[in-house]
Amino acid sequence: MLKRVNHIAIAVPDLAAAASRYRDLGVATTEPQDLPEHGVRIVFVEFENTKIELLEPLGPNSPIAAFLERQPAGGIHHICFDVDDISAAIGTATENGIRLLGGGEPKIGAHGHPVVFAHPKDFQGTLVEFEEN
Amino acid sequence: MLKRVNHIAIAVPDLAAAASRYRDLGVATTEPQDLPEHGVRIVFVEFENTKIELLEPLGPNSPIAAFLERQPAGGIHHICFDVDDISAAIGTATENGIRLLGGGEPKIGAHGHPVVFAHPKDFQGTLVEFEEN
Repeated sequence: MLKRVNHIAIAVPDLAAAASRYRDLGVATTEPQDLPEHGVRIVFVEFENTKIELLEPLGPNSPIAAFLERQPAGGIHHICFDVDDISAAIGTATENGIRLLGGGEPKIGAHGHPVVFAHPKDFQGTLVEFEEN
Repeated sequence: MLKRVNHIAIAVPDLAAAASRYRDLGVATTEPQDLPEHGVRIVFVEFENTKIELLEPLGPNSPIAAFLERQPAGGIHHICFDVDDISAAIGTATENGIRLLGGGEPKIGAHGHPVVFAHPKDFQGTLVEFEEN
């Protein structure tokens, strides 16, 4: 069911500074993109084999604001795995006792694909996203 | 300087349970390997494009014991990036104001390659490892 690591998401207090850090070390970054419906501004750091998604809060109700209150310097927020079929993935996860957030209903994620998040308690303390790709 | 995400390391309280979770979702895992000189027992979860390294404390002075005291359920411990040349990477990092742990002296890491860790304060709160590969 899980194939590839689509991205590693890192919440940061200063998106421009974070992107610059990676560029200075020779990794290409995308232009910042506002995703107001998700409450984040993002930049992708494009490694040869996968991506880091840098997330900065956007707007007053950003889902990552509380995370940055706990960890003001930033930190790894979640890992996203590609799955072939989000409905099949939800079925397999549920059969394996993995609790899904949002009632297990897939939503259209920040990148236009169906996604669902699993409870960190069922993944060794790590917030995990499944993305149909 | 940074090329690929070599692995994402996740500290876990129960290595067998964590490995089983990923196997049940269709990802191959390696046999557990004791690395007493590093104070960890590890399993790699082998995705198509990169790896997760599951880390369980081994012995009383494990470097991840304190991490698991703070986060008993586990959590993401560090990200490891491949670099071509560890000495050149140390030079570039230092020129960019990135503080390196252990006085910036490379050591032979858990996988037999020279490694050095950067200070999380200089990477948006994320502990980062550079591995020569």
